[in-house]
Amino acid sequence: MTLDELGKPQGKWVTFREEIKVLDCTIRDGGLMNNHRFDDKVVRAVYQACVEAGIDYMELGYKASKRIFTPDQFGTWKYCDEDDLRRIVGDNSTGLKLAVMADAERTDYHQDILPKEKSVLDVVRVATYIHQIPTAVEMIKDAHEKGYETTVNLMAISTVKEHELDDALEVLVNTPVGTIYLVDSFGALYSEQIRDLTIKYLRFARPAGKEVGIHAHNNQQLAYANTIEALILGANRLDASLSGLGRGAGNCQMELLLGFLHNPKFKIRPLLKCIQEYIEPMRETLRWGYDIPYMISGQLNQHPREAMRFMEGKDYKNIVEFYDRMVEEE
Amino acid sequence: MTLDELGKPQGKWVTFREEIKVLDCTIRDGGLMNNHRFDDKVVRAVYQACVEAGIDYMELGYKASKRIFTPDQFGTWKYCDEDDLRRIVGDNSTGLKLAVMADAERTDYHQDILPKEKSVLDVVRVATYIHQIPTAVEMIKDAHEKGYETTVNLMAISTVKEHELDDALEVLVNTPVGTIYLVDSFGALYSEQIRDLTIKYLRFARPAGKEVGIHAHNNQQLAYANTIEALILGANRLDASLSGLGRGAGNCQMELLLGFLHNPKFKIRPLLKCIQEYIEPMRETLRWGYDIPYMISGQLNQHPREAMRFMEGKDYKNIVEFYDRMVEEE
Repeated sequence: MTLDELGKPQGKWVTFREEIKVLDCTIRDGGLMNNHRFDDKVVRAVYQACVEAGIDYMELGYKASKRIFTPDQFGTWKYCDEDDLRRIVGDNSTGLKLAVMADAERTDYHQDILPKEKSVLDVVRVATYIHQIPTAVEMIKDAHEKGYETTVNLMAISTVKEHELDDALEVLVNTPVGTIYLVDSFGALYSEQIRDLTIKYLRFARPAGKEVGIHAHNNQQLAYANTIEALILGANRLDASLSGLGRGAGNCQMELLLGFLHNPKFKIRPLLKCIQEYIEPMRETLRWGYDIPYMISGQLNQHPREAMRFMEGKDYKNIVEFYDRMVEEE
Repeated sequence: MTLDELGKPQGKWVTFREEIKVLDCTIRDGGLMNNHRFDDKVVRAVYQACVEAGIDYMELGYKASKRIFTPDQFGTWKYCDEDDLRRIVGDNSTGLKLAVMADAERTDYHQDILPKEKSVLDVVRVATYIHQIPTAVEMIKDAHEKGYETTVNLMAISTVKEHELDDALEVLVNTPVGTIYLVDSFGALYSEQIRDLTIKYLRFARPAGKEVGIHAHNNQQLAYANTIEALILGANRLDASLSGLGRGAGNCQMELLLGFLHNPKFKIRPLLKCIQEYIEPMRETLRWGYDIPYMISGQLNQHPREAMRFMEGKDYKNIVEFYDRMVEEE
C-alpha cells in the first residue's frame, strides 16, 4: 500500500487479505469484569478454541506490578506469571502466538517481563495514556530488546486533541514497536471518526514500516462495524473476543469478525462451541455487553466506569435514573 | 444534492440535516414477534414517547387481509382498523405522522385502506418482494390517489440480482411513491454493500424527486452502523425501533440513532422511560435482539425464520447444533 492509496478500500469483501491478523482478547479484556479470576478450564478452553479457529494471537492478561496490585485482590491473569501461563499452554507448540498487556507505570517490566527465550509469550502489548508515552517508549524498547514482538495501545484518544495525537504518533513511529493500535476506549467513536483516525495512523505508521491495529468497544454497538471500517482502509491487526467478552459493553465479537474476513484458515465452529460451553454461562454473573447505560457513557464520550458500577448494582434496569445523573454531571 | 455529490458525505457529524426524518417501527416490526398482540397501554406508551421525543413518523402495524389472516390468530395491529387506531391516538392532534405497512398480495387495499380524510393515518408503506412489483405499483397508486404519503419497501434485496434491482428501481421511480426504502431484510449486508446500494438508490430516486430510506436488521450487529452509513450518503428516511424491538435480531435502535443525529428537536429521555417501563419488560417473553443464531442466518444471507423458530425453542442455547444444521442445509 502506498500513501496515495490512503482512504481507499484495501480489498473487496469477497476476497481476503492474507496480511490481516486477528488477536483474541477474551481473557485479558474480560478479566476487567472479574478481577482476572478465570477458572483454568475457561482459559484452557479459550486457548484451544483459538488454536482450532486459526486465530493468530491470544492475549492472556496483564503483567501488573504486584507492588501496586496486591495478589490477594486479583486473580492469576492480572500477572500472567510464567508458571501460570505454562500450566495452561505447556510450551505452546501451536501456531497461536501468546500476548500480554503491560500498562505504562503499572508494570515492573524490568523484572516481570522475562527474556523471550525464558517465556512462552510472543508479544508484549504496551498500553499507555498519552501523558505516559515516555514510559511507554522505554517499555517498548525493553520488550523489543528482550526479543518480543511489540504493540502499543494508545488509550482514550477520543479525548485527545488532534495535534497532540500527531505528536504522540510521531514519537511512537520512532520506536521499535511493530504495531500501533487505534483504541476506542470509551466506545465513543463513529465510523467517520474511525475512518479519519485510521488514515491518520496509517499515514504515520506505513512509512515507518509499522502496522496499524484496531481495538474497539461496543458501547454504541459499533465495535464490529468500526473494526470493519478500519480494516477496509488498511488496519491489519484486529482485536476481538468471544461473544464480545470484555470491559463494560465489551469488544468486537470474534465470531462476527471471522464471518466477515472470509479467510479460509479461520473456523467459526470451535468458537461457537467454546462460547456455548464456557463463555455464555458466565454472562449472568459478569453482565458484560451492549446495554443502554454503556450507550449513554459512549454517547457522552466518557469512561465506562460509572456505567459499570451502575450495571453491578441491583437497580441496573433504572436507565432513566442513570441518564439523568450522567446528563446532570456533564 | 446533485448527482455529482453521490458517494460523498452529505454533512458533518457535529451538524445535523434538517431534511432527515425518522420513523419508529416498534409496534409494526415488533408485532412479528407476538402476532401483533400488544396491550393498548404499550402502544399508547410508544405513541406518547414518539410524540415527546420529536420522532417524525410512527408505524402501528399492518393492513392485512382478514380473508388471508383470520382475526382469531392475530392481534389488533395486524389489521389497524380505524377504530383501533383512534382508541390509541384519538384524532392525533400532534406533529407525529402515523403509518401502516401494506404487504403486496396480502392486503385488501381497495376496501381496507380508507380515503385519507376518513383516517388518522398519514402514510401507507407498501412492502413488496421483487416479483410482486406490479401489484405494489397498483397499491402505491391507490394510496396516493386516496391522499396518503407513500413509501415502498423493496424486501430481501440481498438475494436479488443487480440488473433486476435496477429494473425494479426504474419501475418504482415512475410511480407517485414518495420514498423508496433500502431494506436489509436478512441483516446480511455489510457497510460496503450498503454504501453501494445507497448510491444506486439515490441515483434512481433523486432525479425523480424521491427520497431514499433505510430499514436495517441487526443480525450482524450492523443495523445502527448501516443506518449511519446510508444516512451519511444521503438517505433521509430512517427506520428504527425502541430497544431495537423487531423481528428476530430486531432493528436499528432508536435511542442509538437519535444520539447520532444531533438534531435538537430529538429527545432521548422519553424513549428511555418507555423502554424501561414497557419495552424491556417484554424481552423475556419476546426474546428479540442480536443473538448468535441470527448472526448465522445473517452471515448465510438467509431469511431469519429458522433462527426465530430455534430461538423460540427450549434448546436455544445450543448454538453449535444450530450452526451445524444451517451449514449442512446450505
